[in-house]
Amino acid sequence: MSGTDAVMRRVFAVREREAMDAATEAALAGLAARVRELTEAVVHTAVDPAEAAAVAAEVAALAARLNAARRAEPPIARIGGNGLVRQLANPVSGALNPVAPPVEIEFTPDGGVRTAFTLNGVYEGPPSFVHGGVSAMVLDQLLGAAAAANGTPGMTATLELRYRRPTPWGVPLTATAKVSRAEGRKTWADAVIAGPDGRTTVEATAMFIMPVGAHGDGGSSGDVADGDAPRG
Amino acid sequence: MSGTDAVMRRVFAVREREAMDAATEAALAGLAARVRELTEAVVHTAVDPAEAAAVAAEVAALAARLNAARRAEPPIARIGGNGLVRQLANPVSGALNPVAPPVEIEFTPDGGVRTAFTLNGVYEGPPSFVHGGVSAMVLDQLLGAAAAANGTPGMTATLELRYRRPTPWGVPLTATAKVSRAEGRKTWADAVIAGPDGRTTVEATAMFIMPVGAHGDGGSSGDVADGDAPRG
Repeated sequence: MSGTDAVMRRVFAVREREAMDAATEAALAGLAARVRELTEAVVHTAVDPAEAAAVAAEVAALAARLNAARRAEPPIARIGGNGLVRQLANPVSGALNPVAPPVEIEFTPDGGVRTAFTLNGVYEGPPSFVHGGVSAMVLDQLLGAAAAANGTPGMTATLELRYRRPTPWGVPLTATAKVSRAEGRKTWADAVIAGPDGRTTVEATAMFIMPVGAHGDGGSSGDVADGDAPRG
Repeated sequence: MSGTDAVMRRVFAVREREAMDAATEAALAGLAARVRELTEAVVHTAVDPAEAAAVAAEVAALAARLNAARRAEPPIARIGGNGLVRQLANPVSGALNPVAPPVEIEFTPDGGVRTAFTLNGVYEGPPSFVHGGVSAMVLDQLLGAAAAANGTPGMTATLELRYRRPTPWGVPLTATAKVSRAEGRKTWADAVIAGPDGRTTVEATAMFIMPVGAHGDGGSSGDVADGDAPRG
């Protein structure tokens, strides 16, 4: 049993997680949205230390209420009946994750993907601009979605980012991504973030490797060599 | 007045933000830690929709209390008297930001930087592993700290990531970074994340460009050409 087999077992184990029903998903999406707003309030608040401590105590009590019933792993929902799942608490695009902006990704007629989003002060890196690592996170997610939209999903193997100019927070941004090439289990995609004036702020290129066993092929295309393993 | 001048004015405007006192910083760090725990509880909770909605209403009330007094921009603290500031709510390393893990960075005797951290399910990408974009975000922050530790801080110009194997969540991780070369206003640094077994999971290389006017030189080294602008 290779280490790669063990990795694949863990990746595909997501299919065995219990799927969440729509009513619970909607309620938790609402809860996550409120915690997102609370997070923004924490970063910008100017209340005095006593009030901050009082609010902190109430927050702890609410966390205890939520922890009264817990799932071991983040929630999923099924997509159709083919074993595909949606990770509802993805840290970039998951409506159920308070740390996610969240970035909502849509398909474009040209076969690519696109998102329109605004980041707030929570995501500030250089003063008045988005943290470069946050831009990287959004682009990684979008590039992965482009690979999936192309029918060639995979795990990120390489990601290259070129920061052309600062990305401002608090204004509408757009990002697009599209596959440029797919060869065997490897897929390459390009993406950009653009500011309100349409000028590119960050460019990215990624290469994804499709895990053996993806699309339910049961690994029939052979094992994955160690130097060519699926990546995080 | 070039666009670059405008960017630099905004970047250096951080020095004019009102610095936060230590008592307020401590209280808000405690509050952010509780909201971080609440976020983890949201991602893992299995309460029913009615309870989720009830908690959401309470969270909204707490956000309103914090928003009763607001600052326009994320908080800073002064470091010494030389105009340098710490951004307390940095989305990767800021103790005052609930979306930050947070990653605490320390200097190493060899002139580099290091961090030991554990990511929870909030940061999951591929099932049971850390999101590749989250690893990118941590490495960007750490590489930037390495450039600063070298006395040559700058804004990220390029960032290249190579995902060698998946990075697991819920276990102790370490990451290190160090400058490999500095030339004029450009600085190159390398970094890695390693799992509990010491094996590298992600490698990264970044290039930073020091903004003109950094270190209070008032831009005396000349303007920044458009093709060579400071980046986000």
